[in-house]
Amino acid sequence: MKAVSSLRRAEQIREIFWPILGRLDDVEAFFDREFAHAEPMVRDLCTYVLGSGGKRLRPALVLLISRMLSYSGERDVRYGAVVEMIHTATLIHDDIIDGSDLRRGRPTANSRWGNQTTVLVGDWLYSRAMDLCLELGDVEVMRQLVTATLRMTEGEILADQERGRLAIDEARYMDITRRKTAELFAAACAIPALFQPSTLHLTEPLAEFGRDIGICFQLVDDLLDFTAASVKVGKPVMADLREGKATLPIILLMPRLDGRQTERLQSVVATGRFDEITVDEVLELVRTSGTLEETHRRARRFADRALERTRSFPDSPERDALAKATQLLLDRAL
Amino acid sequence: MKAVSSLRRAEQIREIFWPILGRLDDVEAFFDREFAHAEPMVRDLCTYVLGSGGKRLRPALVLLISRMLSYSGERDVRYGAVVEMIHTATLIHDDIIDGSDLRRGRPTANSRWGNQTTVLVGDWLYSRAMDLCLELGDVEVMRQLVTATLRMTEGEILADQERGRLAIDEARYMDITRRKTAELFAAACAIPALFQPSTLHLTEPLAEFGRDIGICFQLVDDLLDFTAASVKVGKPVMADLREGKATLPIILLMPRLDGRQTERLQSVVATGRFDEITVDEVLELVRTSGTLEETHRRARRFADRALERTRSFPDSPERDALAKATQLLLDRAL
Repeated sequence: MKAVSSLRRAEQIREIFWPILGRLDDVEAFFDREFAHAEPMVRDLCTYVLGSGGKRLRPALVLLISRMLSYSGERDVRYGAVVEMIHTATLIHDDIIDGSDLRRGRPTANSRWGNQTTVLVGDWLYSRAMDLCLELGDVEVMRQLVTATLRMTEGEILADQERGRLAIDEARYMDITRRKTAELFAAACAIPALFQPSTLHLTEPLAEFGRDIGICFQLVDDLLDFTAASVKVGKPVMADLREGKATLPIILLMPRLDGRQTERLQSVVATGRFDEITVDEVLELVRTSGTLEETHRRARRFADRALERTRSFPDSPERDALAKATQLLLDRAL
Repeated sequence: MKAVSSLRRAEQIREIFWPILGRLDDVEAFFDREFAHAEPMVRDLCTYVLGSGGKRLRPALVLLISRMLSYSGERDVRYGAVVEMIHTATLIHDDIIDGSDLRRGRPTANSRWGNQTTVLVGDWLYSRAMDLCLELGDVEVMRQLVTATLRMTEGEILADQERGRLAIDEARYMDITRRKTAELFAAACAIPALFQPSTLHLTEPLAEFGRDIGICFQLVDDLLDFTAASVKVGKPVMADLREGKATLPIILLMPRLDGRQTERLQSVVATGRFDEITVDEVLELVRTSGTLEETHRRARRFADRALERTRSFPDSPERDALAKATQLLLDRAL
């Protein structure tokens, strides 16, 4: 099941990203060169995490948008790799934070190498990413990445503070999502506009596009915590809920529950187990209350806005691919 | 005892750093402003760690050298604070790595806030430090700091790999020390030279000075693991040894031990306890073998080289203060 599903997904991604498949290979070659010079332990851990079936969505966006803007240098590959390195550093530190044992169906880095090594390799990836920006003196690119990293960290801190609380204000939740997930998408999309003076005016529109697909991406992830089979996402069903992380379907559900239902749902967060309420009962609640559907509607709203924004981008096969990629992000929910 | 010792130390520091005491207060005010806008949890944790009796050695170096170079702007305070923020981020992540409960005699951040929050606040401090460099567009300053951070992280990774091994090659140990400790001192000392075109030529000599006092600082720290009373350093005696960290007195000692002695010393690392050998016996070994003295001699060699280097700096009260500070770093060992 897992094999079929990820083959199908990989196929769809190849179909959509055909204009830059060669460049995606160059990103992989960039990683290989990068880690060939690193300490063996850094290389092993990074290769392990980077090789764990990530979809290279952020590098693909950098590459596709660079090509859409007729950029022909080598910065697209470098910054595609840099964005993925920052994303990977976040994943590595996240797993320590969550105490997770599994990601994408494999043991997490921290469960294999320990928290000690893992926190350091995360730090190394961040520092090396900054170093790669400085090598070419690309200050504006760096500004995008530093701002994104800072907001991501703030988003994580806010999320960490809310851990264990399911009744979160929706606006606050959206603010956290924007910082935690959408800002790095925004940077990935905006950076290619900085490569050439002639495309500088597209920096902000592209950042906004990235922000929209980033939020869509996160809301669909929220849905998948409920609807995806464990084998498909490579972690237990309702893992977020178990770990005390509120997702939008739950946040929308909370005001509609009676006292007893609230208590039973809270018990999952308190114990990490489905003793007082079953997985099927929770699923029934989010289904019948319509909050799964509402979450999907909101995800679609962000996808629609992202599609709308693509109209101001140069008419090109890459623009069409961006639109299809947006649709694919949304369709993951189905 | 602790109070007396740190009062005496604080007095000595005030005597030496008199030319920049007012500026050191400005660094504290900078932190206050900085954290006033941060998330409450970030503020609490950062205030706690930054307020735990750190000597502000790195900011003092930035300020003193800036003044020695007749710099009169505001960058000295900003980058003094930034260097201390990076240092603090490292301390915070180090405590997670070591699983330490105490630093400077107080509970560590991770034992108070948990690993989760602590790893994030460390990340935040790094990102915010970079952000503060970008605000003024000081790319060369940023380059110094990113390089130092990368080397520090690599040094930590190498040290982590050697954890539990006492028989380390001395050259390798010095390489680790240089990266782990000395590179941030080098950056702190070099950065003021970047503030004015007229002092750019002093960047590398100042970095070399910083590297030398950084290594001296670390070697004296190695000594203090054996010679300082627990109350003075605020952590248990021979904490490094207990945690499986080789220090120079031990590295120099290892080739001189017989099989039985080696085993007994290794047992401390293996168990974290002094069951098969007592603290006094270890002290006796490093004393009679002369490796404490040898370590001090090496520390003095680096201090002497640093003093030698100050001769090429502008003749000024600040240069004299730098020389006295170097002497004080070395004298901590006595």
